[in-house]
Parts: sequence; structure tokens; C-alpha cells
Amino acid sequence: MFIVLEGIDGAGKTTQLALLTERLRQRSPEVVATQEPGGTPLGDRLREVVKHGADLDIVPRAELLLFAASRAQLVERVLRPALARGVSVVCDRYVFSTVAYQGYGRGVDRGLIAAAVDLATGGLLPDLVVLLDLEVRLALQRIASPGRREPTTFAPARGRDRFEGEALAFYERVRQGYRDQAAVDPDRWLVLDATRPPDHLARIIWEKVEKFGLQG
Amino acid sequence: MFIVLEGIDGAGKTTQLALLTERLRQRSPEVVATQEPGGTPLGDRLREVVKHGADLDIVPRAELLLFAASRAQLVERVLRPALARGVSVVCDRYVFSTVAYQGYGRGVDRGLIAAAVDLATGGLLPDLVVLLDLEVRLALQRIASPGRREPTTFAPARGRDRFEGEALAFYERVRQGYRDQAAVDPDRWLVLDATRPPDHLARIIWEKVEKFGLQG
Repeated sequence: MFIVLEGIDGAGKTTQLALLTERLRQRSPEVVATQEPGGTPLGDRLREVVKHGADLDIVPRAELLLFAASRAQLVERVLRPALARGVSVVCDRYVFSTVAYQGYGRGVDRGLIAAAVDLATGGLLPDLVVLLDLEVRLALQRIASPGRREPTTFAPARGRDRFEGEALAFYERVRQGYRDQAAVDPDRWLVLDATRPPDHLARIIWEKVEKFGLQG
Repeated sequence: MFIVLEGIDGAGKTTQLALLTERLRQRSPEVVATQEPGGTPLGDRLREVVKHGADLDIVPRAELLLFAASRAQLVERVLRPALARGVSVVCDRYVFSTVAYQGYGRGVDRGLIAAAVDLATGGLLPDLVVLLDLEVRLALQRIASPGRREPTTFAPARGRDRFEGEALAFYERVRQGYRDQAAVDPDRWLVLDATRPPDHLARIIWEKVEKFGLQG
């Protein structure tokens, strides 16, 4: 089974990834938990490059292709081999983040996004996408809290020094991007209210995973 | 005017790039001479990443997308702005290398190549492509000669430690890839015998450039 966690930064993906991976491991010792961008030596290098997006003045089209390169490596070296061996995969972000962040967030043309996604994945899609949906104001508060790990590289490359209002508008578009994708493919997507307690969310996710397991 | 130099490693592109740039500068002080992959801070970083292709075990599809990312940045930040200001651009390698190396050389699907090229360039093509055509055996001898700068990053990522025969076959396919592209678009391509003396080649290239200048 191939499961993807999605949501804007601060929605709680990291926590749910850990809880879900742990539960899957109780059922079968081998589980692949990975993330985008990254998850391979190449992907980790590219993650570092994208982090310096502002210094390098990376244009949206190049950023799109960098994420695609990282994803192509992950799909061919990690995801497909694991799934072929019957191993479950849990991934923190996937193509849906590209649609939400580069498409809705930065306004890159949808046709270009679709082409880049297809180039990177060859059509590999997850069985289940869990969207941790959260109001943008709450998410930004969570990100700003002390002890929080640094924001992921999907943050707006040249937005960090801009006014907060601009960040708000950006993340509002990203959130809408996720919700729109969920709306057109409800069988694949599980949309959850990320303000609910983590153990409650974990239970709902697990119920959904078990249902898939019974079907599969 | 936008001019691209192409050819397998060892064909003499660097020499001709320098000679052509010098002549163009005599006519107009501002000329952009650049290279692929690279030519921007992002491109230079990616060039370093691709150089470690063997260690990072980069799959052909990811390599294709890395070159595309470097190219997208170059097109948007260097090529289009220069051409818009009426400045001539000379580029060491462009999309034709991707077709030759990734397509013919590594066997990446032509449709994927075309999609990646289009994503990166948005359709920007040069006015003139100069192909320095050279027998593969001669090119490999030139590359191996002392004092030669390190081979470009287009060398087969996992081919360097293989038998010479495999490198020969790879570069034969690449050479054929260039010749096939030149054959279908003869107005854009100038194919030269790279064994001729550098000043002779430079003269023929300059004649062609001047002809374009008269037309334009």
C-alpha cells in the first residue's frame, strides 16, 4: 500500500507520519517512510539546493523541474522497488504538493505542472492521500512556535522576507489547491481537520488504512 | 543572434566558442558566452551535482530533469533577457545535446525528452547550430590527451569505469543523434568536419554568422 500525507507546513504531517509508520511496522516489520523532496542521496542534495532558492534566484519553472528530478529518483530507486516487493510506503508530500505549491501557490501553468509530474512519476499514484487540512493562520502560528524544525523547502522561495500578508495569501492559495484536488478524487483522498488531537487523527487514518487492507 | 555549438567531447567546441565570441565582440562589445549545464549560479550547482552522477546513482529520467532545470534557469535569467536587448548569445551545448546524449546515448524515451526540452525552454531555439562532427575514436584520443580539462558532465554517468568498447558505442550513438538532428533541419544547422584546422573552421562559422547578420 502506498500512502501520502499532504498539507501546508504546520499541519502535523510529521507527527502523523511517525504514528502511521509505527502502526504499519507492528503489522509488518518492513515499511518505507520517506519524504519529498529528498528520500535519496540525490534528493537530499537537491533539497539543499532548493533551500537556497532565494540566494540562487531560482525561477518557478526551474524549481518545478528540480522537484521533478528529486521525485524521479525517488520513484525509480525507492517507491517502485518497495511496492514491487509488497512493502508499504508512507511518503511525506508527493505530486499533490507540486500542484498546490507550484501551481496554485506560484501560478505555474497547469499544463507544465502536469507534464513535469508525469515525467517524474511515469503515472505512479498512491492508494490513499491523507490531507491534514488547517486554517492558514493556525498553521503559520504553529510554524513560528519555538522548537519547531526549520520550514520545509516548499516555503515560498522568495517569500520569507516579504510581509506576512503575502505569506498568508500564498498559503491560502496552496490550501485551496489541496482542497480542490481532494474534491475531484474523493475515493483516493481522506480530508481531516488538523486541529483535532493527534491520536484521534491517527485512529481515523488507521481505520481507513485497514479498510484498504481488507479490500486489497 | 543566438548561436549554439554542439558536438561530442573533444570535438573542439571550447576553442571555437572562444574564437567566435572574440569576433562577435569586435563587432559589438556586448556578447553573452555561456554553457550548459551551468551558466547561472543554480546551473553551476547542478553541474556539480551531475558530476557526481555515479556516486549518487542518478537514474536517466532524473538526469534529464536536472539538465532541464539548469536550462530553464539559463533561458529565463540569461538567454531571453540578452536576446530581448539585442545582444548576441553563444552557448556551448543546448537542447540538441539532451536529444543526443540522453535520447540516443542513454535510450531515454523521445517523448519524455521532447516534454523536458519544452518545459525548460518554452520553445526558444537558436538561429544557428554549429555541429563539430568528429569520429569517435579521434574524439576519445583528444579527451585522453594530457592537459585536457576534465570531460564535461555529459559523459556517461556510469560509463567511466566500463570497458572502452562501451564508451565507443555510447559516443557513436551520440554522434548519430547529432547528425540525425542536423539532417532534418539543414537551414538551422552547419555541420563541420572537426579535423580541419581551428582557424579554417572559425572562418567558415564566421561566414555563416555574417550571412545571418545580413538577413537579420
